[in-house]
Amino acid sequence: MNIILLSGGSGKRLWPLSNDIRSKQFIKIFKNEDGSYESMVQRMYRHIKKLDADAKVTIATSKTQVSSINNQLGDEVGISVEPCRRDTFPAIVLATSYLTDVMKVDPNDPVVVCPVDPFVEDDYFEALRDLSNQADKGDTNLVLLGMEPTYPSEKYGYIIPESAEKLSNVKEFKEKPTVDMAKEFISQGALWNGGVFAYKPKYVLEKAHELIDFTDYYDLFSKYESLEKISFDYAVVEKESLIRVQRFSGKWKDLGTWNTLTEAMEESVIGNGQMNDNCSNVHILNEMNVPILAMGLHDVVISASPDGILVSDKEQSSYIKPFVDNFEQQVMFAEKSWGEYKVIDVGNHSMTINVSLNPGHRMNYHSHEKRDEVWVVTEGRGKTVIDGFEQNIKAGDVITMDAGCRHTVIADTKLVLIEIQLGDEISALDKYKYDFID
Amino acid sequence: MNIILLSGGSGKRLWPLSNDIRSKQFIKIFKNEDGSYESMVQRMYRHIKKLDADAKVTIATSKTQVSSINNQLGDEVGISVEPCRRDTFPAIVLATSYLTDVMKVDPNDPVVVCPVDPFVEDDYFEALRDLSNQADKGDTNLVLLGMEPTYPSEKYGYIIPESAEKLSNVKEFKEKPTVDMAKEFISQGALWNGGVFAYKPKYVLEKAHELIDFTDYYDLFSKYESLEKISFDYAVVEKESLIRVQRFSGKWKDLGTWNTLTEAMEESVIGNGQMNDNCSNVHILNEMNVPILAMGLHDVVISASPDGILVSDKEQSSYIKPFVDNFEQQVMFAEKSWGEYKVIDVGNHSMTINVSLNPGHRMNYHSHEKRDEVWVVTEGRGKTVIDGFEQNIKAGDVITMDAGCRHTVIADTKLVLIEIQLGDEISALDKYKYDFID
Repeated sequence: MNIILLSGGSGKRLWPLSNDIRSKQFIKIFKNEDGSYESMVQRMYRHIKKLDADAKVTIATSKTQVSSINNQLGDEVGISVEPCRRDTFPAIVLATSYLTDVMKVDPNDPVVVCPVDPFVEDDYFEALRDLSNQADKGDTNLVLLGMEPTYPSEKYGYIIPESAEKLSNVKEFKEKPTVDMAKEFISQGALWNGGVFAYKPKYVLEKAHELIDFTDYYDLFSKYESLEKISFDYAVVEKESLIRVQRFSGKWKDLGTWNTLTEAMEESVIGNGQMNDNCSNVHILNEMNVPILAMGLHDVVISASPDGILVSDKEQSSYIKPFVDNFEQQVMFAEKSWGEYKVIDVGNHSMTINVSLNPGHRMNYHSHEKRDEVWVVTEGRGKTVIDGFEQNIKAGDVITMDAGCRHTVIADTKLVLIEIQLGDEISALDKYKYDFID
Repeated sequence: MNIILLSGGSGKRLWPLSNDIRSKQFIKIFKNEDGSYESMVQRMYRHIKKLDADAKVTIATSKTQVSSINNQLGDEVGISVEPCRRDTFPAIVLATSYLTDVMKVDPNDPVVVCPVDPFVEDDYFEALRDLSNQADKGDTNLVLLGMEPTYPSEKYGYIIPESAEKLSNVKEFKEKPTVDMAKEFISQGALWNGGVFAYKPKYVLEKAHELIDFTDYYDLFSKYESLEKISFDYAVVEKESLIRVQRFSGKWKDLGTWNTLTEAMEESVIGNGQMNDNCSNVHILNEMNVPILAMGLHDVVISASPDGILVSDKEQSSYIKPFVDNFEQQVMFAEKSWGEYKVIDVGNHSMTINVSLNPGHRMNYHSHEKRDEVWVVTEGRGKTVIDGFEQNIKAGDVITMDAGCRHTVIADTKLVLIEIQLGDEISALDKYKYDFID
């Protein structure tokens, strides 16, 4: 099976666990059998591989997510990076040509496209396989998955099928409606359009060549910025007559707010947290290393990260965005392809960071113009390269780097550093990368 | 006026802002005219000095509070340090002999004793002056302040006066009663015994010599540990017949739980915090440098420090102690005589600390057996002494210290360091102090 997972933009609705860098799909909230936690991305990927160990998975995403994806899924997964945001039609075309031109998928092999972030169970992945098989038959150009509505949502577009059969021709598409309209659609047997569909690459690439002048993936990538912003629904789906919808009645939930996210959590506490017996319907998600104690609360979510602390009535939690937009704040933690970092102290002319590198990984070779840096190794072994000079390092070693000096660190084992940045203008933008020959 | 402020032990009822080192009276929660915040100790001291700029204030306290007192009140204030805990009679005798033998107060000059932590207003300090004047007259041995009860509390002992006059002889003392008994006492005109009283040192020292064999302050201090634990009420107050009570009807509140403390706060937010319009009776006290956002909460206190985060219904907040006792946690922040420190990162074999020294202050000259340390200066100027070798330091300097090496730092300006402690056994107990000759 070929799958394109659409991994959408960052958001602040799950602040402080999501931020400008970390989208909600990377928050680790689902407990594994071994007691560790996995994110929506990891959960989705694991389920796909469980159903079909040979599945070719490509994640269509923006540049900012590549580090997190590599950190959470490893280097094996295919990533189709959008050079910039150009809506779903260009993104799906880019990912499809990535599949055929880079991953060498046969243009007649079916592809399933689905968003990475709904909360689903095993039956969903079986439905994806059915969808892929339907597309493989070749008697339709597009097969959509239509979710049986559980309430008259205003958030989704609706698909009106011709029949109530499992597989039906599509009679009509409806834009996101009002609640009253949604009720009316549902009484007519309408299904939610969740943006899940299957097709043969050949079909989508033909549509693409009608609208875009390009030769192959590499050519498309290079002119991506000049493409028109247009949705796949508008450019393709709504104009297609050879189109069917496959009905799906299993669990399919958007975990876009704290209210819905906590409903999907198996436990009430993730991280260091406790509550007394007088709490009901309380969830604690704590990514800080200090304890949280909740007493006598009801219907409340408490969520803490180095970015901040949210304490919210669950219903009200969907209204946090304008508040969070007002926090003038830099990102205090992030996953990188080589590991992760966390800001632990902000001074008037300094910033102190806990930097953790995974074994075998290394930072980019880089320099800063306006700050000096000091590394104190607190755990592990590896080596540094400072202005071309290589040096083995271990816990206890101190490395000082003046502004302008080129530096990197390579982890042999898991390697933890305390990095102290010193300067009057400390900015994430003050970073210059260089090629590095090992 | 001579005042002995009893500054009692640490407590966890105001966790996470109070801990094993910081007692509630040192939490800065009262807003000053200049926008900064002051603690109960600072507020009490400021009010006393406002009423009587020449007041001699002595704080009777334990060793653990000396640094905080010096940090918050400066070096001028008298401190009578109890070498260990021996209940109120030995503590008051020690402080009284400190007044006469160290501060050279005339044994016939009246002294007022009062706890440092009730929340009071200007009229209270006027009442203290009246109390002192009454004691000065010499026609009674003890004059107590009796607070007019606002509810039938089980927390206080009660004083039954002979009359309803402002000054009355004491008819009887009653131990902490049940609510029903308290109601009965109040109907008889009883007053709360808040542990506020005045006397002439000569009187208390005579009583002391009857029970304890000692010559002066220094002798008493040296044998303090051998003294019997006995309360001042039991040893003196309840046996005295020449005793009066002065009625007080002003504000006098114990701020011992989050519920009562937040009632005394003028603002609903201290530190970095925001709440939406759907919050009511919510207080945020944030000593961390990340924002707190509260949404749709009612009757809740949110309190955060490097020790942890409390989110509690206000009524329930009085029951936190057993939970907090269960947190196996070291103290993550503290005031010292020279400034303050805050743990910012805990690793497997390391601990990273933000150390801030006040201008002109310095640490003890000390060493550690089982850890190396690295200092990175992030702000200010000063000097270090490492194994006797003196060196000027400024922002950007890095100082490495192996285990066993003696070191100190002296601040010329405000001086901020990031201290990285490195070792397999990092403990606050691993500290050896040495004399240091400048």
